[in-house]
Amino acid sequence: MEISENSFIKGIRKFSRKSNSVIRGIGDDGAVAELAAGRYVFVQDAMAEHVHFELSFMDPYYVGKKALYSNISDILAMGAEPLFYLVTVGIPERFSSGEMERMYQGMDRAAREFGVTLLGGDTVATAKDLFIDISVIGKLAAARYFGRDKARNGDLIAVTGRLGEAALGLRALKEGQDARNLKGCIRRFLSPRPPYALWKEIVKNDITDAMMDVSDGLILDLSRMMDESKKQARIHWEKVPMPRPLRQRGLEELAFGGGEDYQLLFTFPRKRLPVVAAMIEKGRAVTIIGEVVSGRGVRVYRHGSEIPSPPGGYDHFGERM
Amino acid sequence: MEISENSFIKGIRKFSRKSNSVIRGIGDDGAVAELAAGRYVFVQDAMAEHVHFELSFMDPYYVGKKALYSNISDILAMGAEPLFYLVTVGIPERFSSGEMERMYQGMDRAAREFGVTLLGGDTVATAKDLFIDISVIGKLAAARYFGRDKARNGDLIAVTGRLGEAALGLRALKEGQDARNLKGCIRRFLSPRPPYALWKEIVKNDITDAMMDVSDGLILDLSRMMDESKKQARIHWEKVPMPRPLRQRGLEELAFGGGEDYQLLFTFPRKRLPVVAAMIEKGRAVTIIGEVVSGRGVRVYRHGSEIPSPPGGYDHFGERM
Repeated sequence: MEISENSFIKGIRKFSRKSNSVIRGIGDDGAVAELAAGRYVFVQDAMAEHVHFELSFMDPYYVGKKALYSNISDILAMGAEPLFYLVTVGIPERFSSGEMERMYQGMDRAAREFGVTLLGGDTVATAKDLFIDISVIGKLAAARYFGRDKARNGDLIAVTGRLGEAALGLRALKEGQDARNLKGCIRRFLSPRPPYALWKEIVKNDITDAMMDVSDGLILDLSRMMDESKKQARIHWEKVPMPRPLRQRGLEELAFGGGEDYQLLFTFPRKRLPVVAAMIEKGRAVTIIGEVVSGRGVRVYRHGSEIPSPPGGYDHFGERM
Repeated sequence: MEISENSFIKGIRKFSRKSNSVIRGIGDDGAVAELAAGRYVFVQDAMAEHVHFELSFMDPYYVGKKALYSNISDILAMGAEPLFYLVTVGIPERFSSGEMERMYQGMDRAAREFGVTLLGGDTVATAKDLFIDISVIGKLAAARYFGRDKARNGDLIAVTGRLGEAALGLRALKEGQDARNLKGCIRRFLSPRPPYALWKEIVKNDITDAMMDVSDGLILDLSRMMDESKKQARIHWEKVPMPRPLRQRGLEELAFGGGEDYQLLFTFPRKRLPVVAAMIEKGRAVTIIGEVVSGRGVRVYRHGSEIPSPPGGYDHFGERM
C-alpha cells in the first residue's frame, strides 16, 4: 500500500453510512453507538490468504463481501438481526489501493443488503499475506437465541438451500475446470449470501429449536451441534439437497464434507412440521434431512441402512487449501 | 498447530469467565450478552508479526497481553469502561500449542486486571505469520464521550505517564542493548498497561474535553486530534515528560515520535486547572504540556521559541519495524 493510514482512513469514511444510533463513527479511538436494552449477539470471523482464498481466483471485491457474509451468517444463525460491523484488514506491501477499494466495496455491498453499518476497525501492514477479520453485532429478534445446544429429542433436522455448491465451485476455480453448469456453484463460493428472506420467515413462524450455519461441512457442523446439545443426529443420505453437477460428477461427498455454503441448519419440534411443510409447499428452499434422537454424534443412513459417515468436514487447522 | 479447531476451542473455554450479563459464551456461532440501554463504545485493533512485534524478543504472553491492553486503551480514551472482548488469532503452522496457551494467558491476565469478559472470536490458520486482532466493547461512563473532536480554544493539553519509554524499550530489545536502567522502558513496550486508576480519577473529576491514547507518537496523535477538532496545539518541548534514559542518550525525539506508550493525551478547560493541579500535587502522573489555540496542526516551542517539529510518528502503513 502506497498510502498512509491517515489518508486511507479518510478514504473509507465514505463507506460509513448514517445511522441514527451511531453517535460517533470512524475517525476516533472508537465508535459510539446508542443501544436499546436487550440481548445482543457478538461474532468475529476471519479469512486468511492462501488458507481461505487465493487472490489469483478471488477478486478482493469477493473477499470483502464473503468475509462480511460469513459473519452475518453467524449472527442470523443465533437468531439475531445484524446491526453494526467493524473490520480489520492486514495488508501486504504488494496489495494496491485499488484492490483495497474493491475489498471495501464488496463489504459495503453486503452491508447494504443487510442494513449493517460500518462502525470502524483497523488497518495494519503485514509482512506477507492479506487477512481480513470482521466483527458483527446483532440484536436478538426474540428473547431466546437459536443455540447449538437447543436440539431436543424428536426434533426434525432441516437445511436451507443446497449443500456442496461452494466446495464444487472452489474446485472449479482452483482446477480451472470447464465452468459450464458450475456458475451457480462458483457464485456460491465467491458470494455466499445468507438466505435472509427465508431466515425471516423461519423467525416469524417461530419454528426452530437449534440453529447454526453450515460453514465447515454438514457432518462436522452437525456433530458440533449434537455435541453441544448432547444428542444424536440421524440423517438420510438421499434426502440431503445437493446441486445437480455434484451428482453428475459423482462428488456427492462434497454435500457432506464441503464447507462454506453458509446455509442454515436447524432443528424443529415435530409438532411444527405442518408449518415447515407449508413453507416447502410454497417452494421455499427448505429440506428435512433427518431427526434428533438420544445418543451422541451423527449417523448417516442410505435407503434405511446405516452407512459409514462420508469423509471430510473442513477444519481450518487440519486442512488447507 | 498440531491440534484441531474443535479441541482448541474447548481448550480456550477455560478463559471464558462467568458474567451475569453473558447468556451464551464460547461454543456457538456467536455469543449472547444482555445489555442495559445506553451508549456503548466499539473498538477493534490488530498486531501483526514482523510489523508490530517479533517473537524473537516478545514472548506470546506479551503479544496477547499487549493486544488486549491496546484495545482497552482505546476504550478508556473514549471515556468508556471495557466490558467484553472477542479475539481472532491467525496461527502459522510453526506456532506451538504451548505458545498459543501463553498468548491466551497474557490476554487473560489483562482481562482480569480490567474486569473484561472473553465472549468469543475465531482461530484461523495462516500461511506464514502470526496475527492477533481483538475487538472490545465498553460502556460510556457518562452520557458524553471523550472524542478527538472535542478540543476547544483555550484548553490546556496534558498527558499521563512518560512518553518515549516504549520506543526506547523496543530499541533495547531489537538491538540487544545493555538493559541496565532500561527495564522500565522494556516493560512499557512489552506490557503497556493503560493507567486505569488515573483514568478513573480523571473521569470522576469530569475534567476533559478531548481525549485519545498515545499509540503512534505524540506529534502524530496530537495532530490527529487537532485535525478532528479543527484546532491548533502548541506544546512546550521542555515540558514533555520523558524517562531519564532518553535524556541520557540524547534520544529526546522518541518522546515526540515514538509510539506504543498507550498513555492518555487529553485537553481540559483552563477553569478546571485547579483540579488538575491538585492531582499533580498529590503525585499523580499527569503533566501539562501545552495549550489549544485556533488554527491547525501542532507547533512545538522550546524555551519560548518555535522549533521544527521533531520527526517521526509511527504510521503503520508508512514505517515498518
